[in-house]
Amino acid sequence: MIYVIYDISDDKIRKKVSDKCLNYGLLRIQKSVFAGNLNKNRIDELRVFCENIIEENDKVYIIEVCEKCFGKLICIGEEFDKELVNDSKKTMVL
Amino acid sequence: MIYVIYDISDDKIRKKVSDKCLNYGLLRIQKSVFAGNLNKNRIDELRVFCENIIEENDKVYIIEVCEKCFGKLICIGEEFDKELVNDSKKTMVL
Repeated sequence: MIYVIYDISDDKIRKKVSDKCLNYGLLRIQKSVFAGNLNKNRIDELRVFCENIIEENDKVYIIEVCEKCFGKLICIGEEFDKELVNDSKKTMVL
Repeated sequence: MIYVIYDISDDKIRKKVSDKCLNYGLLRIQKSVFAGNLNKNRIDELRVFCENIIEENDKVYIIEVCEKCFGKLICIGEEFDKELVNDSKKTMVL
């Protein structure tokens, strides 16, 4: 399971990163936060993609969590569908 | 180790949550993202605090990660001081 969280000032660049996350099957859980399952290669591809387009003060953090850590997630306010996020593993395999 | 990530529309409420995170010794690593070490009670206190003040469409997620998962963090662009974040455990104990 991974979370992708970013602070990107330029709208066009930010859109490219969010489109890439959607394209990889990640789910948007907050404005600048995506979650889902990506294999090691995809994570590297995403890292290289972001390295090539973000600007100096921009930040993209990819937080990888094990199933146990994912289970300890606390959602306050509007929740997201944890099953769906975790299921993205199945959609990846099909 | 925890990350606190939030989407909060009202400026005053957002400030209260960020002030509370700073007050608990968490470090701001992105505009709406804090990181650091909090014990179980503090996490519960933060959760209740946020539950009481955020509005309907607001979201606050507390992502708890073990040392191993924290070690797999990928920072692209402007990094944050992982030692400092992890050290906040020591400052908590002193």
